[in-house]
Amino acid sequence: MRPNTVQWRSADGRFYLKPDPSLDPLTPGGVDIIDQTLLPGSLKRITLSTPETIYDAIQRLAVRGAPAIGCAAALGLAACAQRFGTEDCAEFLRKLRQTAEYLESSRPTAVNLSWALRRCCGRTVSAQEKTVAGLLKILLTEALEILDEDIAMCSAIGQNGRTLIRDGMGILTHCNAGALATGGCGTALAPIYAAQEAGLRIRVYSDETRPLLQGARLTAWELLYSGIDVTTICDSMAAQVMREGRVDLVIVGADRVAANGDAANKIGTYQLAIAANYHHIPFYVAIPSSTIDRAAPDGSAIPIEQRHESEITTINGLRISPQKIKVYNPAFDVTPASLITGYITEKGVCSSI
Amino acid sequence: MRPNTVQWRSADGRFYLKPDPSLDPLTPGGVDIIDQTLLPGSLKRITLSTPETIYDAIQRLAVRGAPAIGCAAALGLAACAQRFGTEDCAEFLRKLRQTAEYLESSRPTAVNLSWALRRCCGRTVSAQEKTVAGLLKILLTEALEILDEDIAMCSAIGQNGRTLIRDGMGILTHCNAGALATGGCGTALAPIYAAQEAGLRIRVYSDETRPLLQGARLTAWELLYSGIDVTTICDSMAAQVMREGRVDLVIVGADRVAANGDAANKIGTYQLAIAANYHHIPFYVAIPSSTIDRAAPDGSAIPIEQRHESEITTINGLRISPQKIKVYNPAFDVTPASLITGYITEKGVCSSI
Repeated sequence: MRPNTVQWRSADGRFYLKPDPSLDPLTPGGVDIIDQTLLPGSLKRITLSTPETIYDAIQRLAVRGAPAIGCAAALGLAACAQRFGTEDCAEFLRKLRQTAEYLESSRPTAVNLSWALRRCCGRTVSAQEKTVAGLLKILLTEALEILDEDIAMCSAIGQNGRTLIRDGMGILTHCNAGALATGGCGTALAPIYAAQEAGLRIRVYSDETRPLLQGARLTAWELLYSGIDVTTICDSMAAQVMREGRVDLVIVGADRVAANGDAANKIGTYQLAIAANYHHIPFYVAIPSSTIDRAAPDGSAIPIEQRHESEITTINGLRISPQKIKVYNPAFDVTPASLITGYITEKGVCSSI
Repeated sequence: MRPNTVQWRSADGRFYLKPDPSLDPLTPGGVDIIDQTLLPGSLKRITLSTPETIYDAIQRLAVRGAPAIGCAAALGLAACAQRFGTEDCAEFLRKLRQTAEYLESSRPTAVNLSWALRRCCGRTVSAQEKTVAGLLKILLTEALEILDEDIAMCSAIGQNGRTLIRDGMGILTHCNAGALATGGCGTALAPIYAAQEAGLRIRVYSDETRPLLQGARLTAWELLYSGIDVTTICDSMAAQVMREGRVDLVIVGADRVAANGDAANKIGTYQLAIAANYHHIPFYVAIPSSTIDRAAPDGSAIPIEQRHESEITTINGLRISPQKIKVYNPAFDVTPASLITGYITEKGVCSSI
């Protein structure tokens, strides 16, 4: 059993993972997420329904992973719109755009965030609806379709990536691109779940992924929760584990892929790709095709978010560094296409974009 | 100013870093160390003078780093001997051997520990002294000579490595092979201190070095304390920092170097060497020549110590991993000579061993 990271919770407490004709768009609901900052210690779900709480949840990584952020933002936008308190369509659409712009600024690198918000806005704005109730129905349906498509996309990535996996393989992954990072069963972890369902015996090595330890906290948790053989290692151990012949395949996710195939992903991915290349181990990037940003000709066009030094100097609130130490904390890096063996998308497996 | 990790403190409170003819071997003194378990939170020096306190300090890593442990044990043995309370030379030597054996068992794997204790015992036993005062003088002089030689060795490594550094360079290091790990100014950090003394402007990037964070806790602290521009990064960020052109040179220490030049050092060194190689950045190993193990033909002869999973699953006593997670925790890795640009020893800089 895998956890559902993002769901729509209606006013009567029912959960939706896909559009349902019985859903009343006028009854305020909310986006229900697992608060990932509390994992693996405790599994707690929270329901978000205001711009501020959604922005905050995305920014403090309570919900994280590009597809999950996209789903949460789209559903969150619908939840906010239900509370705009206007019957005037023009005012509704103005508030919709304002809220979308605000939510879009919560994290700069993930392309799915702006993509999902713009898709919801665009669909609603271009609809020929004359009532706010009609616009709300369009908006909520679109948001639930984004979630629905995400679930289907994860499933397809899983089936496509599954063809790369043979019985007994060791697979290394970095950060968390699993069920916790998407609306479905993940991107990088989807082929692993598909292999498990096909009865293949696999061993997974999960980089702990400093500074925020998404691998140690989240990937380890969700694979363990799903009954998959998983071993946590420190990020610096990956090359040694490869040298010992324990790794046959590396699969990672990506936050944005440029038109030439350069892939921006969690810091450490680039170093891992160099190590895989040195050991002649296939290195795959699993992504929905929506992650490909055709407007970015190569990786140099992708902005790299710098995050706060406290992520490195303190762990769980305990300070590990001396006072006044300088820290450099890029949240992502760009792996050049030359180090990537192939891409696993919902459409298939390909060696170039 | 650099912290002196190991010093001899005489009864009048004076500190000695080398043999001094005015030192009275009959007046009980002690070995003065920085308690590294309290760094970087607080800088506290403790003076040790009994077998139990010295054993405890070495075992709980209050003093660490193979050369620093050797110096602390030698001086500690002298401090204990001053309190044997006998004028009988035979009884004195019997107690000396007993104490040395006891101290040697505090960390059975550290080669400098047994080497330093056996050297002190051997020199004292073979001396032609007829009085305990004479034996004590031999013993204390020998212990101070071990410290003195260590200081000179660090200094020579510093001067030799300094020739590789140019003004404005960025230098990356891993773990702690600095003043805190030796009696002098370190091995890997010695060229950095020498460059500072020569007035060169340098920037140092210090890998935090999971799992035990020696880089974040110790290297960052001692370089900051010494007024050197130091920035802490996570281990997984090294390749990205290299890609951004911030690193011109990598210098690391080593625990053991095989006859063919393969170098065993803190886990993560191998991955760093692969990243440096990919970016065509010179990668140097700074070591006393005594670290070269001619009996090991290559790296495969060096055993890799596996350490306890709690080093990874908990940080400062706080659990970060889910319960029952599997962990792989090799403490060292071996960097093949093919990835090492050169070796910096007290004798000079060479491209092969």
